[in-house]
Amino acid sequence: MEPRLTPPTPRGQTSVTRPTRHWYLLGRARWLRRKPQARSLLGIPLVLFRDAGGRAHALLDRCAHRNVPLVQGRVTADGCLECPYHGWRFDGAGSCRKVPGLCGDNSATGRSVPSFPIREQQGYLWVYPEAGATPSHEPFEFPLRGEQGYSVVRRELEVEASLHAFAENALDVPHTAFLHKGLFRGSAEPNLIEVAVTRAADRVEAEYIGEPRPEGLAGRMLSPSGGMVTHFDRFILPGIIQVEYRIGSENHILVTAFCTAEEDFRTRIHAEVSFRLRLPHWLLKPFILPVALRIFKQDAVILKQQSANIRRFGGEAYTSTELDVLGPHILRLLRAAERDRPVDGDREPWQKRLKMLV
Amino acid sequence: MEPRLTPPTPRGQTSVTRPTRHWYLLGRARWLRRKPQARSLLGIPLVLFRDAGGRAHALLDRCAHRNVPLVQGRVTADGCLECPYHGWRFDGAGSCRKVPGLCGDNSATGRSVPSFPIREQQGYLWVYPEAGATPSHEPFEFPLRGEQGYSVVRRELEVEASLHAFAENALDVPHTAFLHKGLFRGSAEPNLIEVAVTRAADRVEAEYIGEPRPEGLAGRMLSPSGGMVTHFDRFILPGIIQVEYRIGSENHILVTAFCTAEEDFRTRIHAEVSFRLRLPHWLLKPFILPVALRIFKQDAVILKQQSANIRRFGGEAYTSTELDVLGPHILRLLRAAERDRPVDGDREPWQKRLKMLV
Amino acid sequence: MEPRLTPPTPRGQTSVTRPTRHWYLLGRARWLRRKPQARSLLGIPLVLFRDAGGRAHALLDRCAHRNVPLVQGRVTADGCLECPYHGWRFDGAGSCRKVPGLCGDNSATGRSVPSFPIREQQGYLWVYPEAGATPSHEPFEFPLRGEQGYSVVRRELEVEASLHAFAENALDVPHTAFLHKGLFRGSAEPNLIEVAVTRAADRVEAEYIGEPRPEGLAGRMLSPSGGMVTHFDRFILPGIIQVEYRIGSENHILVTAFCTAEEDFRTRIHAEVSFRLRLPHWLLKPFILPVALRIFKQDAVILKQQSANIRRFGGEAYTSTELDVLGPHILRLLRAAERDRPVDGDREPWQKRLKMLV
Repeated sequence: MEPRLTPPTPRGQTSVTRPTRHWYLLGRARWLRRKPQARSLLGIPLVLFRDAGGRAHALLDRCAHRNVPLVQGRVTADGCLECPYHGWRFDGAGSCRKVPGLCGDNSATGRSVPSFPIREQQGYLWVYPEAGATPSHEPFEFPLRGEQGYSVVRRELEVEASLHAFAENALDVPHTAFLHKGLFRGSAEPNLIEVAVTRAADRVEAEYIGEPRPEGLAGRMLSPSGGMVTHFDRFILPGIIQVEYRIGSENHILVTAFCTAEEDFRTRIHAEVSFRLRLPHWLLKPFILPVALRIFKQDAVILKQQSANIRRFGGEAYTSTELDVLGPHILRLLRAAERDRPVDGDREPWQKRLKMLV
Repeated sequence: MEPRLTPPTPRGQTSVTRPTRHWYLLGRARWLRRKPQARSLLGIPLVLFRDAGGRAHALLDRCAHRNVPLVQGRVTADGCLECPYHGWRFDGAGSCRKVPGLCGDNSATGRSVPSFPIREQQGYLWVYPEAGATPSHEPFEFPLRGEQGYSVVRRELEVEASLHAFAENALDVPHTAFLHKGLFRGSAEPNLIEVAVTRAADRVEAEYIGEPRPEGLAGRMLSPSGGMVTHFDRFILPGIIQVEYRIGSENHILVTAFCTAEEDFRTRIHAEVSFRLRLPHWLLKPFILPVALRIFKQDAVILKQQSANIRRFGGEAYTSTELDVLGPHILRLLRAAERDRPVDGDREPWQKRLKMLV
Repeated sequence: MEPRLTPPTPRGQTSVTRPTRHWYLLGRARWLRRKPQARSLLGIPLVLFRDAGGRAHALLDRCAHRNVPLVQGRVTADGCLECPYHGWRFDGAGSCRKVPGLCGDNSATGRSVPSFPIREQQGYLWVYPEAGATPSHEPFEFPLRGEQGYSVVRRELEVEASLHAFAENALDVPHTAFLHKGLFRGSAEPNLIEVAVTRAADRVEAEYIGEPRPEGLAGRMLSPSGGMVTHFDRFILPGIIQVEYRIGSENHILVTAFCTAEEDFRTRIHAEVSFRLRLPHWLLKPFILPVALRIFKQDAVILKQQSANIRRFGGEAYTSTELDVLGPHILRLLRAAERDRPVDGDREPWQKRLKMLV
């Protein structure tokens, strides 16, 4: 792999991580058409394009010759990506196939551009951020695809925050009763609930036991009669977030989001909400979705302020309590993944129980 | 005190200083109302707020939990500053008083935010930039408050310059005849005057002996008949500037300005002009004040150009003559204050006399 | 010379060079009138002004006293450049001639501003970027000035690119058939031509042998009947570019451009096109010039993208082929000039022949 040449990172300790031995979701497959597209992954500038047969490829966005960004070029009839300066052509493997004007062999070694493993799967483009590597596993698969009785809503979002900051936020329960008061939780008296945390080699999960139906508008619509709830929050390496609710026997919601760190403080999220609900479908679009997006927007504002403050101070100085159920575990998992090691010596899953007022 | 985490400073030598063992004027008391306010002091981001009883407090503008700027929060009914993210509450001492959702003790140590000594005095808010310190002295008091026969005009100003650059400028006589020609000095033939400079442990003072009535519009209005003038210029640590004129027996003007370095190259000034003049009061507002503000504006433009050039060159390369009566002394005082030591071994006040054409 | 205090340069290896023992063209002589003008040379901020006799001078754009940019000042009746802050006056040699208010000698040493050798020649201003130096040679002279039968068109241009990147681009043949397709070359089948490269101590030259009349609009107008062409491309230290065409016996075009690196990634170009053509003159302005400017504009866009990508990656990672006829030699010449040495041990001119499809 090329030496990673990224923008300067802030001084001091941050929760920014860059685990490279994982597949990342870069965009929806249909977003990449004839025109090459630029996208960063862990700070690495990439260009994505489709060859003549429609197969997607990911190269470092820098011509081997004079370092012009290849995204400014075009795809030729023979399926190569052509640099706009001298017309050098690179195939999907990054090999130089043509140097206009050159007599003799056009494809000498040393003229290639680093090429990154890429997959098209479930309508998404996945890239592995180690050029020339042969990944030992395949990308993540979103669950409940095509499952009988389930609907799926997909959304693509972006936040100005590190992957860790966003993942912690998305799986954090206490802030919902406060920041999203009235929309999600926090409108009634708090209940004492129990949380069981389990950390395994590649994931950490929290089960919320004894939680009543969520308060607020969303909860009232889902389950007007109240009732107990099964609720799991889950983080899976390198950036998968799952929130799963079962409310009574009729309602099942599973939010799965794949988070990709484009830059240290910019994360792109592809979320799929799979659900089987007692609500008529025509209610969902006009009511549930706007509420969910308002909640996301409130989080995005806070996360942006948090990122700006971390950069202003030149690093993080976090304090945690046991209410920070998953955040510190997510960071340990990410740091271990960055070193490509299992989280320190974890053979048996690690477990803990705590109580929380929600 | 927290490690000071400020924006990057320019390379090379500059006259930027950060003496922390002094009180600084952060704003007028009435500026701080219900809403928390952010302000920097020596590069330290602070949030100021008033508790339920109206008492002012100054905390580091960073929640101990997830580092969100507290200025985005609100003051609760119990007088705490509440973080907008998870609703942690901090009292004026920076102690955490509430962690929503947490069972048991909400105020464990290690969850506090650095709190800075603050005073409300003479209608101003003063902050001491060492968190948790117990200052051995009280803030500066503006003189001639409530003095019989005196009027006071107050102004708050801001310049893009280091405190040193502004203080030197404000107490510099030679540039007035040049930059402010016609407004202040410089419209008549120069006079040879004598300057007596005295430096003590915390201050430096210049007395101008034999100076005629100031030339220009301001002078003619103050003392139409001419006559000798008593004129003192004074710098007192950490950023007090005084210009004192007596023109005949009828006129006394004392300008006292407290300068606070918010950032390395941004200084906020609170000035009080106390005066007893032979001019009728209705003349002052329309004539004297606009002239003073025009003079300040000319200085602010030059100081901004100077700051930009110092940053462009990555540092300062000053040359001084004996006309730079106070500037070099001010820098020595500030550097000594930064190390919290008296200016090198000064027991006896240091004195010098020189001549100047003004 | 003052320590060079330039803006921060990118990390990693770049082709940015700063050879100081050469004259550089800073602007047209008539551009500098009564008002002082600021201009950077190799990252050094300069102020240019004309004294009472109209003679041009170049000083470091920083007052020796309090570092205000002198370009904000004015030229006095005695031909000095006067600082706008305290009115210090500097003559063309940078010596301080007046310190307003100072009794005694106004021109003590240590108060001077670095002064740079300057020449006015052929209607241009030339500066030597070593303060106080006595250059051992004179500035470059543009050829064919006043030559019978020749017309001259002059243009001043600016690109966001290092001098090396621009010089390489301007003398690069292969990209013309691609980037400027239809305008310059590339509209017909490629021809195999021979290139003879000769590098001497201060220059490198490529002769293109067997090249047909340039394709595209420009070529068709110059030589409707076709015919062989003599074509030389030349780089001469420190930034002279020459492109010379002879088409038949009637047409001779010599483009000479002097390139000055103002900043690491900003180059100013003064070009003179001397020509003797079979075309009627009234055709040139409306047809040839717009085509030339469109070609330049296409190059400027690519060079700007290249510069931005080099900065994004923190340095260059170039690969060259033998088609990069002059670029690598230009860099070797510039690096040798930067160390003020002849290109490594070159006694005999270095020569090479190669073939190219154009």
